[in-house]
Amino acid sequence: MEKDIINLTHGSGGREMKKLIASFNFGERGEWKDCDDDSATLDIGDNKTLVFTTDSFTVNPLFFPGGDIGHLAMCGTINDLTVMGAVPLGLSLAFVIEEGFSQKVLHRILDSIKNISKKTSIPIVTGDTKVMERGKIDKIVINTSGVGIVEKDQLLTKKIEVGDKVIISGGLGEHAVALLSKRFDYKTEIITDSKPLVEEMLAVRDLIKIAKDPTRGGIASILNELCGKHSIGIQLEEEKIPVKQEVSKVVEMLGIDVFQLACEGRFVCVAPPENAEEVEKKLKEFNPDASIIGEIIEDNKVIINTFLGKRILPDPTGRIVPRIC
Amino acid sequence: MEKDIINLTHGSGGREMKKLIASFNFGERGEWKDCDDDSATLDIGDNKTLVFTTDSFTVNPLFFPGGDIGHLAMCGTINDLTVMGAVPLGLSLAFVIEEGFSQKVLHRILDSIKNISKKTSIPIVTGDTKVMERGKIDKIVINTSGVGIVEKDQLLTKKIEVGDKVIISGGLGEHAVALLSKRFDYKTEIITDSKPLVEEMLAVRDLIKIAKDPTRGGIASILNELCGKHSIGIQLEEEKIPVKQEVSKVVEMLGIDVFQLACEGRFVCVAPPENAEEVEKKLKEFNPDASIIGEIIEDNKVIINTFLGKRILPDPTGRIVPRIC
Repeated sequence: MEKDIINLTHGSGGREMKKLIASFNFGERGEWKDCDDDSATLDIGDNKTLVFTTDSFTVNPLFFPGGDIGHLAMCGTINDLTVMGAVPLGLSLAFVIEEGFSQKVLHRILDSIKNISKKTSIPIVTGDTKVMERGKIDKIVINTSGVGIVEKDQLLTKKIEVGDKVIISGGLGEHAVALLSKRFDYKTEIITDSKPLVEEMLAVRDLIKIAKDPTRGGIASILNELCGKHSIGIQLEEEKIPVKQEVSKVVEMLGIDVFQLACEGRFVCVAPPENAEEVEKKLKEFNPDASIIGEIIEDNKVIINTFLGKRILPDPTGRIVPRIC
Repeated sequence: MEKDIINLTHGSGGREMKKLIASFNFGERGEWKDCDDDSATLDIGDNKTLVFTTDSFTVNPLFFPGGDIGHLAMCGTINDLTVMGAVPLGLSLAFVIEEGFSQKVLHRILDSIKNISKKTSIPIVTGDTKVMERGKIDKIVINTSGVGIVEKDQLLTKKIEVGDKVIISGGLGEHAVALLSKRFDYKTEIITDSKPLVEEMLAVRDLIKIAKDPTRGGIASILNELCGKHSIGIQLEEEKIPVKQEVSKVVEMLGIDVFQLACEGRFVCVAPPENAEEVEKKLKEFNPDASIIGEIIEDNKVIINTFLGKRILPDPTGRIVPRIC
């Protein structure tokens, strides 16, 4: 009977969620492509591709060091469009709110949303507001969907080859640690990494082949996904993977794997070897922790070279950290 | 203090909701138009307009005569694109599910979603699945967003004039009565009106000026909105407004106003007088209850000519019926 039940692992970004989603099988997708990617794409002629994505946000607590649910809802969807190479054109915003929720708090969340909209010049163009009875929903859930357009040859769905380099735009685990610090009332200097990635992406788009944002399931999830999808392997150098000292301390203390933690303002990209250093240099202008962390290999798995030897980085499984986004 | 609080009226489609949403004020919308309409629109060149919309569904109960939350989530968003004159290109689908929810029930909802997708040839192209802890959300909430494209001159945002006719595509109140019958365990033959309106719309699109689907707040809400937006009035003939006898009986018994009830498979459209009868005729092929119900007048309000004389149909206010969609 337990097999029939949805549990928290089904929302964690790990193997259980992928299996559930695979069971959905919606049938024909018409002319749409990349439906299992960060955004789906549709050729709309005139060398243009339409890019479309959606995400719901259930983060708990609503406010955390450096951000809040509104900030996250904006950045999450903007970044899902951005990592496809697209310039986001507009977002939708749908609230489901618990009866009794404070209008003042709602307006604080709205201010945060407006800030990102203004900063990125990406407008909120359509919306919806539903209210559920007290106790029927935990405070507020936000869905944002987004559309963007990209020139066909700038779409980041290019073919990866052995020898290509893997680059990350900043340190791992900061969003999760900021959130957990608030949940467990633990004092830390770390703030969420949640941020719109539009500028970083435009700076390197023409130099890279693909990009992914490591949200639920962290880089462990997206790198294993890449391996499966492109039939390649990835070799990482552990000492090159940027993790702030305080993040390391917290994850060690809590016994969680930093490679499985969701980032909300980072992307991992793959570039031909001749471009890798330039990509790293450009990304460092936005975040000094940006780094070339590994390369594409033949062997069909994610391997980390550590101080103690090689180890395999498996696709995450189990609960990881619930309601992180 | 109570003033600071979100309550069920803020989600009812009435005046309180409109006031709350007006307070959001997201600032610049760039080149997007119709942001307060069923879907926002963006000129993407080559005589094409992109149409984009979103909706969350919290309906209770999840299954009701003739439909379920999945059916509703598909039809709601398809229809919001359709009433703009657009052909829907693809939908997103985002689930927020309660821990402990039955996978079997989830797959029943998915089957319903797939059915509509297949029937309309509108694919689900991108999605998201979140799980919240037991007790933190009532079973399941679904968000669908959608994109469509329409030739610029087929966009249903044309200017309404005095003398134009108002036509409805079928009877009122059937969705609400089907839902309430299930909620109150009352036996009725009435099933939800929830259905995709693509075919009806394509049959009359070139004959009409605008269309709206009367969801939350019913025709009372959308007709008052039209009056405000176009600075016109509307005169309805009560005897022409199609309401099935059993629907009349139930709403009378419950003391609710059928004009305020959400329909999920109806649209109201405005056509030049010379096209009105042809529109009515074409719509009757899909639903014999389709009817010309009134006309555009100068006086800036919605007036109903009844058996007992004229009365004003006000913009709804208060709770109406919660969680109907």
